[in-house]
Amino acid sequence: MSDLYNNLLPETLCIADLGCSSGANTFLVVSELIKTVEKERRKHGFHSSDFHFLFNDLPSNDFNTIFQSLGEFEHNLRKQTGEKFAPCFFSGVPGSFYTRLFPSNSLHFIHSSYSLHWLSQVPDLIEKNKGNIYMSSTSPPSVIKAYYKQYGKDFTNFLKYRSEELMKGGKMVLTFLGRENEDPSSKECCYIWELLSMALNELVVEGLIEEEKLDAFNIPQYTPSPAEVKYIVEKENSFTINRLEATRIHWNASNDHINGGYNVSRCMRAVAEPLLVSQFGPKLMDLVFQKYEKIVSYCMAKEKPEFINVTVSLTKKK
Amino acid sequence: MSDLYNNLLPETLCIADLGCSSGANTFLVVSELIKTVEKERRKHGFHSSDFHFLFNDLPSNDFNTIFQSLGEFEHNLRKQTGEKFAPCFFSGVPGSFYTRLFPSNSLHFIHSSYSLHWLSQVPDLIEKNKGNIYMSSTSPPSVIKAYYKQYGKDFTNFLKYRSEELMKGGKMVLTFLGRENEDPSSKECCYIWELLSMALNELVVEGLIEEEKLDAFNIPQYTPSPAEVKYIVEKENSFTINRLEATRIHWNASNDHINGGYNVSRCMRAVAEPLLVSQFGPKLMDLVFQKYEKIVSYCMAKEKPEFINVTVSLTKKK
Repeated sequence: MSDLYNNLLPETLCIADLGCSSGANTFLVVSELIKTVEKERRKHGFHSSDFHFLFNDLPSNDFNTIFQSLGEFEHNLRKQTGEKFAPCFFSGVPGSFYTRLFPSNSLHFIHSSYSLHWLSQVPDLIEKNKGNIYMSSTSPPSVIKAYYKQYGKDFTNFLKYRSEELMKGGKMVLTFLGRENEDPSSKECCYIWELLSMALNELVVEGLIEEEKLDAFNIPQYTPSPAEVKYIVEKENSFTINRLEATRIHWNASNDHINGGYNVSRCMRAVAEPLLVSQFGPKLMDLVFQKYEKIVSYCMAKEKPEFINVTVSLTKKK
Repeated sequence: MSDLYNNLLPETLCIADLGCSSGANTFLVVSELIKTVEKERRKHGFHSSDFHFLFNDLPSNDFNTIFQSLGEFEHNLRKQTGEKFAPCFFSGVPGSFYTRLFPSNSLHFIHSSYSLHWLSQVPDLIEKNKGNIYMSSTSPPSVIKAYYKQYGKDFTNFLKYRSEELMKGGKMVLTFLGRENEDPSSKECCYIWELLSMALNELVVEGLIEEEKLDAFNIPQYTPSPAEVKYIVEKENSFTINRLEATRIHWNASNDHINGGYNVSRCMRAVAEPLLVSQFGPKLMDLVFQKYEKIVSYCMAKEKPEFINVTVSLTKKK
């Protein structure tokens, strides 16, 4: 980021956050970026750049809440940093990042956190993924292949569109859920969904969910390894990789041992409920997540499962 | 608009709509502008520009509804126009147009319809505007003066900020409520509010509203004459005036004689209710607008009152 600022010294620094959501994290990104740029600017005595932040998420995201919090956020940030920094402009850009979102050559920096492991759609499967809702060790090889194919297509499109939108020398920092193991059905990325499919299978046994409905339900996600990311970036050929790394984080990052299962279940509910509701209806959700919480708590007591984050920093080639 | 396109031929045509609201009119502006530009482009065989539409309104505007309707709108527009036109990018920009909203030199065209007669605040009054809620023939001269002073300040700021945001040669077309008479308390612009103050005064007589509360309530609006607009534009000095005109439109533009009073009262309720509620609370609103409808109907039967629209087309000087 500071590197970018030093090289380009633009009048207005245009920064997009893809998959911005509408909570505290939406603003955290903005304040961290402003602080970084301001620190660099002061260190080198450069003229001050205006900031233009573009918040992107799907059209169903609650942009109204972001927009209504912006005034207070900016006021507090200016109070906190204690120094005057240049004007900030904010806008909301609704749409999928698997399409073009911004005019050509209009951005300096793109950030995305915890969004790019979502696929544009559930992969087209030629075989049933019986008893599962995601890739697992019991999934047919054709299912694993279809997931990777969809991911390759989506991430390639993402890179192509972003390279059109970034100015020459523009950068991206992307963080998403991934894995270290080269097996896409390995436990380190699939376990969290496997436990949810256990909860759903219990409801099948109890006759509350039809087996066929469960068989037809799959989560549109893919958690790539660094090697897969590297392969696709190099093949697509618009970006050079500055840095690519995987880090581990406990399922219960808050280290709140007593409520670990509850915390994880609640987070996963926020993420998975809209998908589940569209397939199974809203009525069973409390029951599903009661069961899920129990199963998750049991597993977390036995072992210390971790999520893998993959972070990649990229610069547009030409 | 076509003039602008012919002169600049930009890769991306950046167009802002200030005070876009969130209904059918929001999209009407976009489709009219696209059709105009596409017609010019085909006539001259120019390369196709991408469109970037920036929707601006106050942070309390319902941007979510705009964003969720964009997909269908664009789909229908492309079906209607029958021809392929370049990609359209859309974004929402929350904030008052009496502040800076967009990065410097980032816009080609600014449009605003039925918004600029709203002031940034109720003018600071040194005398009570007794019995009135807006300028009227019975207002003290200091009230009229304070209204004009606020308008001059607001419109000057508006011009200054927009000239910073527009590129060289960029244009604005602004339409707002105004008047032809040079007297700012003339009936042609104040009558509609005078009738509302009659309805409110009836509630004072009935003891439902405190007189002091009514005396302290004033509508933050100013409807300028073309001469006032010309004076402020020339004094501010960032823009040349291409065209400036006033047009008349019946209060009941739909010509629905039976429901004229009802139509006008309903429109005015949509506009004025938020202001009235913050002063008088929500409970009396049905009663206020029942009275208002009766008064308006009676006046419309006697005379044919009209609104005056002022439209000005401006080009940035340098």
